[in-house]
Parts: sequence; C-alpha cells; structure tokens
Amino acid sequence: MKMNAFYAQSGGVTAVINASACGVIETARAHRDRIGKVFAGRNGIIGALTEDLIDTSRESRSAIAALRHTPAGAFGSCRYKLKGLDEGRAQYERLIEVFRAHRIGYFFYNGGGDSADTCLKVSQLSKTMGYPLTAIHVPKTVDNDLPITDNCPGFGSVAKYIAISTMEASFDVASMARTSTKVFVLEVMGRHAGWIAAAGALASTRDNPLPIIVLFPEVTFDEDRFLAAVKKKVEQFGYVSVVVSEGVRNADGAFLAEAGSRDAFGHSQLGGVAPVIAGIVKNALGYKYHWAVADYLQRAARHVASQTDVDQAYAVGKAAVEMALKGRNAVMPAITRTSDAPYRWKITEAELSRVANVEKKMPRRFISRDGFGITPGCRAYLEPLIRGEAYPPYRGGLPRYVSLKNVAVAKKLDTAFSL
Amino acid sequence: MKMNAFYAQSGGVTAVINASACGVIETARAHRDRIGKVFAGRNGIIGALTEDLIDTSRESRSAIAALRHTPAGAFGSCRYKLKGLDEGRAQYERLIEVFRAHRIGYFFYNGGGDSADTCLKVSQLSKTMGYPLTAIHVPKTVDNDLPITDNCPGFGSVAKYIAISTMEASFDVASMARTSTKVFVLEVMGRHAGWIAAAGALASTRDNPLPIIVLFPEVTFDEDRFLAAVKKKVEQFGYVSVVVSEGVRNADGAFLAEAGSRDAFGHSQLGGVAPVIAGIVKNALGYKYHWAVADYLQRAARHVASQTDVDQAYAVGKAAVEMALKGRNAVMPAITRTSDAPYRWKITEAELSRVANVEKKMPRRFISRDGFGITPGCRAYLEPLIRGEAYPPYRGGLPRYVSLKNVAVAKKLDTAFSL
Repeated sequence: MKMNAFYAQSGGVTAVINASACGVIETARAHRDRIGKVFAGRNGIIGALTEDLIDTSRESRSAIAALRHTPAGAFGSCRYKLKGLDEGRAQYERLIEVFRAHRIGYFFYNGGGDSADTCLKVSQLSKTMGYPLTAIHVPKTVDNDLPITDNCPGFGSVAKYIAISTMEASFDVASMARTSTKVFVLEVMGRHAGWIAAAGALASTRDNPLPIIVLFPEVTFDEDRFLAAVKKKVEQFGYVSVVVSEGVRNADGAFLAEAGSRDAFGHSQLGGVAPVIAGIVKNALGYKYHWAVADYLQRAARHVASQTDVDQAYAVGKAAVEMALKGRNAVMPAITRTSDAPYRWKITEAELSRVANVEKKMPRRFISRDGFGITPGCRAYLEPLIRGEAYPPYRGGLPRYVSLKNVAVAKKLDTAFSL
Repeated sequence: MKMNAFYAQSGGVTAVINASACGVIETARAHRDRIGKVFAGRNGIIGALTEDLIDTSRESRSAIAALRHTPAGAFGSCRYKLKGLDEGRAQYERLIEVFRAHRIGYFFYNGGGDSADTCLKVSQLSKTMGYPLTAIHVPKTVDNDLPITDNCPGFGSVAKYIAISTMEASFDVASMARTSTKVFVLEVMGRHAGWIAAAGALASTRDNPLPIIVLFPEVTFDEDRFLAAVKKKVEQFGYVSVVVSEGVRNADGAFLAEAGSRDAFGHSQLGGVAPVIAGIVKNALGYKYHWAVADYLQRAARHVASQTDVDQAYAVGKAAVEMALKGRNAVMPAITRTSDAPYRWKITEAELSRVANVEKKMPRRFISRDGFGITPGCRAYLEPLIRGEAYPPYRGGLPRYVSLKNVAVAKKLDTAFSL
C-alpha cells in the first residue's frame, strides 16, 4: 500500500529551510510509485496534532521550485516542544492517530536538536504501537549547534550575512572614525553557541585586515579585558567593530542582556546586549558609538544566501526521502566534510539517538587565545560555508519570493486535540 | 595653466558615494589636458583645512574602478560644519590658502544640504578673494532630503535594503506568528524625513500583500491610533511588521527615543526607538515582539545596492566634472525624472543657492490617509529607485571591496590650522 508523507518545519526559521522542503517534496514527487502525497503541518507539528494538514500536491511545480529561493517557513513553524514519552504520551498517540487517518507512513521533521528528539520519540512510539512509520529528521538551525553533521543548513547563510554586514559596517565606521563613531557594536543570534558571532571575524581578511572583536557565549565576559582590547584596536586602527552574541554572560553566569521572559522550550528570551556593550564602552572610554541589532534580518536574509548552504539544505531534504525509501528509520542526513581545500562534502547518515539533545558549541581551539577572535582552523572551517552567492530572482527591485496556496486537507477525524 | 582638483566626501557615508568619487576621478582623468591631479581630502573637508591631501593619481585604474562597487567613504568623511562666512572667515581663508598652495582650481564637494551650503560659501569667498575657483556640489544623502533633484544618490540603495529586509523579516514572522512573535519592529534612519521608512512599505506588493505599518517623522505619533492599527493587522493577518523612523516624535515634539547627545551639526543623536515601540505594543496588547535596529548596516549595504542608484551616483560625479569644464560654478548636478513608466531620468543643473539648507520632507500626498503607509503615487516615485541589482564581485564568499593606498600629498605650507 502506497503511504503518504508528512513534513513539518520546527523552531526558528532560516533563509534556506524552504530549500529543504523543496528537496523533500521534489524528491517525493519523483517517487510517486512509492510515496503518495506530501502533507505539510500548518505551523509545524501543531498542524499534525490539530489535524490541520496542507496538501502540497496542490502546489504547482514552479511554486515548489521557488521554495529553493524563498526564506522563512512556507508552511509555518512553531516552537511547540512535545513532552517526554511518559508524560506526553497523549501527544504522541494523537500524532499516530492523525498519521493513521491520513495514511502517513513517512515523517520528515525539519528542525534542530529539540525536533530531533521529538522525531526519535515518534519513531519509538510508533514501533510500540505497532504503527509502521519511517521517521527521518532533516537538520536545520542557524545556530549550527547540531552534533555529528559538520554544519547545519541555515547557518552558512546567516554566517555570510553577518560576515558581509560586519565588513560593510566596518568600512562605514572607518570612513567616519576621525571625527565621529569609533566603536560599532553588532548584536547577533546564538544563545549558547558562538558560531554566528564567529562569522563576524571572517570580515577581516589577509588582503584587508579589519579591527574586529568577537564576544562569544563560550567565553565569560571580562569587562576590563574587553575594554583594554577595544582601546588597543581604536588606538591602532582608529576604530573597532564589536560582534557580540546575544548569549554573552558575565562571571556570575548571567546574560548581559537578560530580558526575563522565556519561550515554550524554556529558553530565555534575549535581545538588547548591543546597547549594553556600547554603554560600557562609552562610560569607560568615552568613544562615540553606534549599535545595530540584526535580529530576524540575519536569519531571513535570503537575498545574500550562501550557495553552499542552499545546496546543502536541498541535499538533506532530498537525502531524507531517499533514506526513507531505503527503509532507514530514526536517522538524519548529516553533512560530512571530506576536504577543506578544495572544499568537498557528502551526505552521510546519523543515528537520531546520537543527535537528539546534544548541543555543539564552538570548540576552544576555534577561539583565539585572547578569546576575542577566531583561529586559522576556525576560518578554514567557516569559509567554505559562506561561499557562493545564491541570488533569488528579482522583479521591480524586489526578490520574487513565493507564497504558497497552502490548501487544507479535508479532516478525517471527528476528534479534537487541545494544545 | 592646468589646475588640480579637490574632492571631498562629507557627512554620513552611503553604499554608493564612492561611485560618485569614481565618476569624478575617472572623468577628470579623461580630461588630463584640462585638469591636473585629483586630490582628495583625508577625512573630508578637514583634510583640506589641515593640508592632509590624498593623491588619487597614485591609485591604479582598477582600484578607482572598484570604487564603483565599494561602500562607505574611500578617503574618509567627517561631520565638520564650517561656520558662517563672517564668523568662520578664517576657515574659508584657510581653504583658499591650501587650494592656492596646491594649485587647486576645482572643488568637488560630495554631500548633503550642509555641504551644499559650505560649497556655496567657498565659491562666494573665493570670488571675494579674487581666487579663481570652480565649486561644484555632488549630491549624496541616504535621507533623500535634498531639494530640486528628484532623488539623492545613496537613497535608492538604502531604500532597497529596507524594502528587502522588511519583506524577509515579514516572511519570517508570518511563519512563526501562530505560536510566537506577532509584532516585528524595524528601526530605520531618517531624522526629519520619512523617505527611508516609506521604503519599508514597498515590501508589500499587489501580488503578495504584507501587513506593514510605517511610522513617519512627518506624522505625530498617536499611541492609541497606532495600537488600534497594530491590533487590526494582527487580527487580520496574524502578525504585523512596523517600520519606524528614528525621528518619530510625540505630540509634544519630543523624539520617542531621545538619547540627549548632539553631533557637530547640532543634530540630536538618535537610536533605540524600536524597543520603545515594541514595549508600547507589549504593554498594551501583550503580543510577543522582536525588534531590529539596522543602523549602519542599512547605509553600508552595498551587497544589495540598487542599480539605478549606482548609475546615478556615478552620473552625478561625472556630470560635476563636465559642468566644471563648461565653466559652471556654484551648481549641483541634479537628477530630473522625465518619465515614471518606463522610468527615465537625466542630469540637469541646479543653482546651489536653491539647494543649500533646504530639507525636502515626504509630501503629505505620499503618505496614506491613516498616516501609516504610502500612497500609489509614492510607490510610483520610489519603485524605480530600488530597481536593478548592482552586485559587487565576490571572492571566497565575501565582496571584493577596495581599500585605497591613500598616499599623502607632500605639504607645501608651513602653517598649521587647528580644527
């Protein structure tokens, strides 16, 4: 019996998660003999729980192809974390109930560490319940914090955006530093892992060295050492750009910009460390400053996406379907780097049990001895990931991003589920 | 006698001011029979006052050509405003002293309203002093606030960046709005004129309408009406993007984000209205929010510059030299729009006396009746200005921006000048 597939996007979206969706859907369409329709969860996994499914077969070939160059989550995403198997058994049983009703035999879950965990649990419970399900996790996270895979789709594009933005702002500040702003602070994402902040350091190249200080969440913030570093750069170059991760903490372990609220996963809601850093500099050194907070702009910046990233995002979506067709279960397509120069990579298979709930931070050997920059090894790691410009098509000066029709699948259950 | 030229960049830099520099230098080089060397002011006009001149003839043809795709100010800029002719006579006389020493007969000043004023005064004083000088102003401002010219080089690229960023962030928020952020606030530049904020509204197109609220400095902020507009958009679309100008004021005329300090021109130093707006929304409506402050990223974003803007920036630089060679004085090349559809423009000549110290705000007819958006007329005006993608060349994932050698011209004076 030919089974349908279910695809859902999870957590914060990226510039290229839709390229993974494109890879899943196009590859499934190429195997119509074995896979029926691809249903997508409206707003992620909660679309499955509430039986709010989207029929992707109603989308044209060109609309699906356009997902490859469209940022954000075309079907909607959510930060809804399923509980543990015991505590949240009703949630998992509901998922299976909906899957059974819509003859869903393939589950493709596109997300980070939390969704890898969910994917694994769904796989386990379906086995316990005797429901035949193939569950494959498709990696995605701007934070680049998944284990096993060399890097995460979504990261390369935000890294490219931050590297370019840091370079451009540094050129700007350099122009004006003689009489105006001497310190520019750019706040970037990365709650616990400093990968995105590290990308700011790529702006300084051998051909064109720029004064950049990176503040990593992996390195405890030391105000005196930071101020000394700022002063030194300003005295040497006339200015400095500071790239600060939202997750930077002081010696007490407190976020420099703790906003107090928490999201559904229990993560603190951060934001606003840039003005804190700027204020520290202004008070101690008196330098004129400017600060920027890139926020969603960084992870949505499909207009300057990395070609490597787009290619890999598509590849993991495609590989997920191929693994499912090979009968693999509870696995994730991972990116394995086979060579730095020339950069070469291939898709390999990772057991979900080794992926779930493991957070990959920046290794110490990637952070320079003074804690304010990256090592040559880190540069060699990062540089291929931002390579290539995957420009979207334009019309009238604006990118032609697609909005899908997102036609609902008729409900088959008369049961409701409250989130 | 063949005279040299002096070129200086003034005020905040833009993504394309170097394209104007390129136009000036390449055109002067094409007329070596009549123009000697082009000297540039290091850090703008203060380079002339301190006799710190850069010899652009020491730069290769390819380095000068690369200015066309390099953001910020290649020779440095400053916000140093010369005083009135009576009060600041010593400054003007010093300029003439330096010009005379270096046989400078052409003065090209690349800036906004303040520098147009300076350029005019230098022209007047040189006449009084009997020193033969041709003074031409080259228009530049991201704020688009110069009169006579249909638009200002520098604006089109920041407008394109803001339109694209608003579109991308809106796609992001739309994906997550069901369970997460419902209100996204983007703070943009524009002290007194709302042109940049208006560009955010371009993100919403007929093909793909997006819920966007624009807060203009020209429209007094009314909290109740704003909150009602936010609520309506969220109820209709599930989310809303708010594009807020740094210069928005309340009914008392106070900036919503007054930082208190002032720059050399006496302008208030703004920043941080985004979190204020986000807080207002959160307190009154309880919606989850995110906010971004684009700051320098917006005006340095050469990676996504408008082709129209780059072409016009180059054209005004080129025209400035051509006007000088025709013996014109105290004028500015202006952009005159001859047709909206198809968009056509030509370079015309504006008297500096009509340009200096006049600020062009958004006309009321360009702002929608509710004060939160733009009219079709405004869209017709803005859209051609963001058209075309003038991508810089890349290497290793990063733009290849040029840093010039900026070799100093040997000093000829033994007099000093303190700023």
